[in-house]
Amino acid sequence: MATQPLIRSKQAEKTINGISTQVICTEFSNYIFIVLTQYGKIGTLVSVTPDSRSGDISIPMFTTKVLLGKDEVLTHVCAKNLTTFVSQEAGNRPVLLGLALKDSSIEAIKAMKDVIKSCQVW
Amino acid sequence: MATQPLIRSKQAEKTINGISTQVICTEFSNYIFIVLTQYGKIGTLVSVTPDSRSGDISIPMFTTKVLLGKDEVLTHVCAKNLTTFVSQEAGNRPVLLGLALKDSSIEAIKAMKDVIKSCQVW
Repeated sequence: MATQPLIRSKQAEKTINGISTQVICTEFSNYIFIVLTQYGKIGTLVSVTPDSRSGDISIPMFTTKVLLGKDEVLTHVCAKNLTTFVSQEAGNRPVLLGLALKDSSIEAIKAMKDVIKSCQVW
Repeated sequence: MATQPLIRSKQAEKTINGISTQVICTEFSNYIFIVLTQYGKIGTLVSVTPDSRSGDISIPMFTTKVLLGKDEVLTHVCAKNLTTFVSQEAGNRPVLLGLALKDSSIEAIKAMKDVIKSCQVW
């Protein structure tokens, strides 16, 4: 019998612009679950779902929805920016994202994407 | 520097009534996140939140809310049954639960609680 865990999960910690940032990525068959936190909290929970469109696969579209926490425009923007590449690489699986950021600058988001990449479970 | 992961996460696999059951528990400062799956899916996402009541701490009350997936009475019942002890042991932290069950019998739920206990991160 295999003793390795059946649910694939990876995590990493990196200091981004002086702020300790933790990432944990877990693979489920129907979702990639990612938490990106600078507070230790699970934060605002957002689902990022690729739209199924026939005839135009060149322009991927995503729907973001806040499931838990404050529904702010910036959250939707960050969520899309951080996870659309994950969804695409994971065979268009939706992403469930917990987001608790102190720093949402473009530069920080870019560095966070690299940390997510380092926790690839898909 | 500590090399141990900053986000505590444990998982287990057990065959319950002939069905492979996977549990993963992850601790965040404001939530305990648990997925209990017999499909490999994250399943229905439910928040289980202790009500704050003054004057009557002898009767703990919990509010369950389906954040993602089908909102069925049985889901609320199972979610409460499976996680109120976690919330209480974790200093009344709310629980975020992903639930994808083939078998929701009382006997199975009881066995699942033991698997959750074996993944204690709180």
